[in-house]
Amino acid sequence: MYTKYKSKTSPSFTKKEGKEAPRRATKTNNQKTAKQNLVKTKFVPKANDKDKLKVIVLGGLEQVGINMTMLEYNNEIITIDMGLMFPDEDMPGIDYIIPNTSYLEDKKDQIKGAIITHGHMDHIGAIPHLLNKLGNPPMFMGKLTAGLVRKRVERYKNTPKVNIAEINDDSVVQLGKNFKVEFLRVNHSIPDSFAIIIHTPAGTVVHTGDFKIDYTPVNDKPADLNRIAMIGQNGVKLLLQDSTDSTSPGYQKSESAIGDEMSKILDNVDGRLIIGTFASQLSRIQKIFDLAEKHNRRIYLEGRTMNDNVEIAHQIGYLKFDNKVLLDSNGLKKTPDNKLIILGTGAQGESNAFLAKVVSGEHKTIRLKKGDTVIFSSSVIPGNERSIQNLMDKIVRQGSKIINYKMMDVHAGGHAKQEDLKLMMRLLKPEYFMPIEGSHYMLSAHADLAEQVGIPEENIFVADNGQIIEFSKQGSDFVGKKTKEKVPTDYVMVDGLGVGDISNIVLRDRKVMAEDGMIVVITTIDSKTGDPIGNPDIISRGFVYMKENRELIEKTRMKVKKMIKEHDPRTPADDEHVKNKIRNEIGQFLFTQTKRRPMVLPVIIKV
Amino acid sequence: MYTKYKSKTSPSFTKKEGKEAPRRATKTNNQKTAKQNLVKTKFVPKANDKDKLKVIVLGGLEQVGINMTMLEYNNEIITIDMGLMFPDEDMPGIDYIIPNTSYLEDKKDQIKGAIITHGHMDHIGAIPHLLNKLGNPPMFMGKLTAGLVRKRVERYKNTPKVNIAEINDDSVVQLGKNFKVEFLRVNHSIPDSFAIIIHTPAGTVVHTGDFKIDYTPVNDKPADLNRIAMIGQNGVKLLLQDSTDSTSPGYQKSESAIGDEMSKILDNVDGRLIIGTFASQLSRIQKIFDLAEKHNRRIYLEGRTMNDNVEIAHQIGYLKFDNKVLLDSNGLKKTPDNKLIILGTGAQGESNAFLAKVVSGEHKTIRLKKGDTVIFSSSVIPGNERSIQNLMDKIVRQGSKIINYKMMDVHAGGHAKQEDLKLMMRLLKPEYFMPIEGSHYMLSAHADLAEQVGIPEENIFVADNGQIIEFSKQGSDFVGKKTKEKVPTDYVMVDGLGVGDISNIVLRDRKVMAEDGMIVVITTIDSKTGDPIGNPDIISRGFVYMKENRELIEKTRMKVKKMIKEHDPRTPADDEHVKNKIRNEIGQFLFTQTKRRPMVLPVIIKV
Repeated sequence: MYTKYKSKTSPSFTKKEGKEAPRRATKTNNQKTAKQNLVKTKFVPKANDKDKLKVIVLGGLEQVGINMTMLEYNNEIITIDMGLMFPDEDMPGIDYIIPNTSYLEDKKDQIKGAIITHGHMDHIGAIPHLLNKLGNPPMFMGKLTAGLVRKRVERYKNTPKVNIAEINDDSVVQLGKNFKVEFLRVNHSIPDSFAIIIHTPAGTVVHTGDFKIDYTPVNDKPADLNRIAMIGQNGVKLLLQDSTDSTSPGYQKSESAIGDEMSKILDNVDGRLIIGTFASQLSRIQKIFDLAEKHNRRIYLEGRTMNDNVEIAHQIGYLKFDNKVLLDSNGLKKTPDNKLIILGTGAQGESNAFLAKVVSGEHKTIRLKKGDTVIFSSSVIPGNERSIQNLMDKIVRQGSKIINYKMMDVHAGGHAKQEDLKLMMRLLKPEYFMPIEGSHYMLSAHADLAEQVGIPEENIFVADNGQIIEFSKQGSDFVGKKTKEKVPTDYVMVDGLGVGDISNIVLRDRKVMAEDGMIVVITTIDSKTGDPIGNPDIISRGFVYMKENRELIEKTRMKVKKMIKEHDPRTPADDEHVKNKIRNEIGQFLFTQTKRRPMVLPVIIKV
Repeated sequence: MYTKYKSKTSPSFTKKEGKEAPRRATKTNNQKTAKQNLVKTKFVPKANDKDKLKVIVLGGLEQVGINMTMLEYNNEIITIDMGLMFPDEDMPGIDYIIPNTSYLEDKKDQIKGAIITHGHMDHIGAIPHLLNKLGNPPMFMGKLTAGLVRKRVERYKNTPKVNIAEINDDSVVQLGKNFKVEFLRVNHSIPDSFAIIIHTPAGTVVHTGDFKIDYTPVNDKPADLNRIAMIGQNGVKLLLQDSTDSTSPGYQKSESAIGDEMSKILDNVDGRLIIGTFASQLSRIQKIFDLAEKHNRRIYLEGRTMNDNVEIAHQIGYLKFDNKVLLDSNGLKKTPDNKLIILGTGAQGESNAFLAKVVSGEHKTIRLKKGDTVIFSSSVIPGNERSIQNLMDKIVRQGSKIINYKMMDVHAGGHAKQEDLKLMMRLLKPEYFMPIEGSHYMLSAHADLAEQVGIPEENIFVADNGQIIEFSKQGSDFVGKKTKEKVPTDYVMVDGLGVGDISNIVLRDRKVMAEDGMIVVITTIDSKTGDPIGNPDIISRGFVYMKENRELIEKTRMKVKKMIKEHDPRTPADDEHVKNKIRNEIGQFLFTQTKRRPMVLPVIIKV
C-alpha cells in the first residue's frame, strides 16, 4: 500500500543541464499539471499580486521547530520543509504541533513542488499529516531524507503514496514556470542536508536549511564554499538563514572532534558501553561505528527508529560499516562486556525511549549493571533537564558510570554559530536577509550579525510566522518589503488521531483540571415544583481525596441543596441560571475553604 | 499577633565562653525543658539506641531542595534547616513540597533546637508549615536569616510566635546535654550563611550548609580558613557537605568578579537598566547598589519580597547604601532614564514576578520601551529554560536589549565547585563523609571527590532521604554505619491551604485529566425495571470539543443506552457493576475512535 524503501516508483532527480529546465523534472511537474487540469482552480489572483514574489515562513520564526516556508509567484507555489515540534508544558496531552497550512489548502493546486532540506523531524515530521491537505504535491529531497520520509509516512494510515524525486547537489529542478531550484550540499548532524537555491523572476532566494560549516565532516562532503561563493557572485536577492545557534559566539566544532573525544573514552572503558543519542544523528552514529571497529567492539542497535534509520542509511551507502560489526540478540548474549556497544535512543530522558526503559528495568532483555558506562551523546534540549537528571540519578544508583556532554565534550552542535553565520553572509552577499528557524530572540541576534556584516537594517526582515514578505517590481528590479499582512498560523495540534481538533477551550479545561481537579455536582429536581429530590451527588477527581474530606463534601452538598430550594418560586427553575449559580457559588465556597479552584460541573436531572 | 521584625522578644545569642555551656543559651534551652515537664513524654528509647548518634537527612539527598537534617542522641534531637522545593512537572497544581517530618512529630518534645544555616527558601521555606508540627522549638540562626524567617512566618495564619535566638560566628549554644553547637561563617550568595559545628558525645559533626569559598566576597567576611583548619585539627567525626556544584570542575568564581562585569555593562548602557534577580541574592543586590552609586544611577525596587528583603538587610547593616539612592514611585517618574536602575524579581521567567509583568504590559506603572536594557542576573534553574526563552522573545520584540548570563558572565554561583570541595575536605579531615544537598548523581560525584582526597570508601555514606546513619560506641571510639533503616520521607505537598492532603490518587487523576480530559456519562435508570429513562447525558471537558464532535458524542450516548438496556434482566442492575462496564467499554470505544484515554466518570441516577 505504501511506497516501500526499495520501491523504484519515485520520480528520480535530474542532472544539472546548463540553464535549461531539465526534462525529467519538467515531466514530474507536468504530471502534476495534468492532474490540475481536471480540477477547477478557484483562485483568482488580485491585480496587485501579479509579478510579485511572496515569501511566507509558515513556521520557525517564533520557535525552534515546525519549520515550513513557502514562495509564491503568479499563482505558482513551492514549499520548503514540513516539520513538527513537541509541545510546551502548557499544552498537556498534545503529542506534537505541526504548521498551519490553511492558506495553502485553498491553493493546493498551485503547489508545484515541496522541497525537504534534510531528514530531521523538525523538517519532515508533519509530512504524513500534510500530504492530503496539500494535494500530495511532488516532493524533492536527498536520498537519505527520502528513505526516512517514506518510512515515516508508512507508519500512518490514510496517507497517499508519496511522490518523491531524489535530488543531489548537481540536480536542477524546474517547478512551474517561475521556480528553478538547485541544491547545495551543507553540513549538519545528518548527511544529505541541503541548502536550497531558488531562481525566481524576482531574483535568487537562498534557504540554508539547518547547517554548519564543517571542514572535516564525518562521512559527508564538506560544504562547497567555492560554489557558495559563486552563487554569491551571481547575486542573491534574499537569504533565509538558520538562526538556531545565532546567540553562540565563535565557530561550531567539527563532528570529527567528537570522534577523538569518544575514542579517548573507549580507551578507558572496560565494561559495556551504552550510548544514548538521537536516531537521526547519523553522523554521530557513523562515528560510533568507526570507533567500534577501531576498538574491536561490536554494536547492538536498540529501538525501531534506530534500526530503521541505520538500515536505510546503510543500504544507500550513507552509513559505512562492515555488517559483522552489528550484533543480533543472540550475538549480544555471547559477546563479552568489554567488546560491546549498545546504541539506542533516549539521551533526552524521554520516558518511552530505550535508555529510560533499560534504567527502569522495563526493557525486555537489557538490564543495567555495575561496570556499565553510559554516554549521553546529545546536548540537552531546553525543558528536558529534569528528566535527564532523574535518569542519571537512577543510572548511578545501579553502579554504572555516566559520561555526559558536560563532563567531556561528546557533543558538537549541528548548527552554525555566529562566525559561521557571518562567513555564509559574506560569501552569499545577499541584498535582503531574513533570519529563520529560531525564537524571536534568536532571530534578533541573527539580524544584529547581518547588520555587522553590512546588510542595511531596512533590508533585514525579522518577521513573524505567516507574515508576508513581498518583492515587487520597480523598474527592472524587485524591491523587498515586510508587509503587515499575515496568513493564519495558529498552532495545529496533533493529539492521538485528531489533527487540529484540540481547541484552546479544550486545552484550557485540561490545564484547569491539572491544576486543581474538578468536581461534578449532580442534582435531581422535580420538574413540576423545581424542588430537589434527595441529596445532590458529588464526585471529585484531582481536587481533594474524598475519603479524607467527607466534611467538606457534605457541606458542599448541603449548600447546593439549599441553593436549589431557595430558587425564586415565581420563576421557573431555569437550568442555565441554576447551573451558573452552582458554578459560581460552589466555586467560591471551595476556594475559600481550600484556596484551590477546581472546575465545577453542575448537572441537573429533571424527573 | 506575630513577631515583627523590630521586636526585641527573641532570645539573643551568647558569646563563646571556652568549653562551658553558655548561660543564656542554656536558659533558652531550659525554657523549653520547663515546658516539656508539663508534657508527658511518650518515647521510650530502645536499649540498643542508648549512646548512639543517629544522623538522618530528611530531605536533600535525592533532590536540590527540601533541605532538612536531624541529629539524635539519647532522646535529644536537634534539626538543621527546613527547606521547600518547587514541584516537578508531574505534580500539577502543587505549590511546593516540604520535608516529611512524621518521624520527628512523635518526638517533638525531644527537639532541643532547630538551626537554620541561611535565609534561602530551600532552607527556610518550610518553617511556617512545620513550626506547629515540631512543637515550636527554639530556633538558632544569623541576624539576617532571622529577619527573613520572621517576615515569612508573618505571612501565614495559625503559626505560633517564632522563638529565635540570633547567633553569630562567636556564638556557642548548648542544646540539651548532648549537643554543643558552634557557627562557622561561610560564603554564599546571601550574607549570614553558616556552617554548623556540632560537638556530640560521638565526636564533632560539621554541616556546611550551602557554601562557596570566596576570598573576596561582597559585603561579607571571607570564610575563616584558619578556623576551619583548627576545627579539622581538633578532629571531625563526620562532615556533611553541600553537593550542589559537585559535578563542576575547578573553582567557583568570586562574587566580586561579577561586579566588574556589571560595571562594564553600565558603562555602555544609555537608557534604563532593568535587572531581574532573586530577592534572596543579597550579595548581588549589594553589588548593584554599589554600582548605582559609582555610575550615579538611582534604584527603584519592585516587588514585595524585594522590598522586604532589602529593608530587613539594610536595617541590620547587611546591605550598605545611602538612602538617597533609593527612589519611590514619584522619584521614578522624575528620574531620567540614563540615571535609573529598576531592580526586581523574575529572571527565571516566573509568570507572577515583576519582570514577566512588565514585559507583558500587566505591570501597573512600568512599561518596557525601546532603549531599555534588561539584565537576567541569575543562572537558569533547570526546567525554566522555556519560560525564560519566552520572556526574552517578548523583551526583544519591544525593542529592548537583553544581557544574560550566557552573553556576559553576570552570574557567579553560590556553591563550591570540585576544587573548593576538596579544599574543605583537606582542611576538615573528616573521619566520615556524607555528601548532602543534591540529587543522587551529584552525591555520587561528590563521593568520588572524597575518595580522591583519601577518605576510605567505606567511610563515605551516599544515603537516601530518611536513611539512618548510626555512630555507636566501640571501646572508647564511635564507629559509623549506614543502616538499612529508614524513617518516612514521602513528599509532603502543599496545595493551597492543604498541607500533605494531596494523595497520589489525586495527583494521578490530575495527570490523567491533563493528558486527555474527562467525560461524564449520566444515566437515569428506572429503579424498578433497571431500564434507562431518556437518553444518557454526556459532558466532556478537555477531551474533544463537543460542538465539533457531535457524532462521536451521539455514538457514545447510544452505546451507553444499549449497555444499560442489555443488562441481564435476572440480576438487579448493580450500580458498581454497570459503572465499571461503562468505564471499561466506553473508555475502550473512545480510545479506538480517538487514540485518547479520557477519564470516564459514570453517574447513575435511580428514580
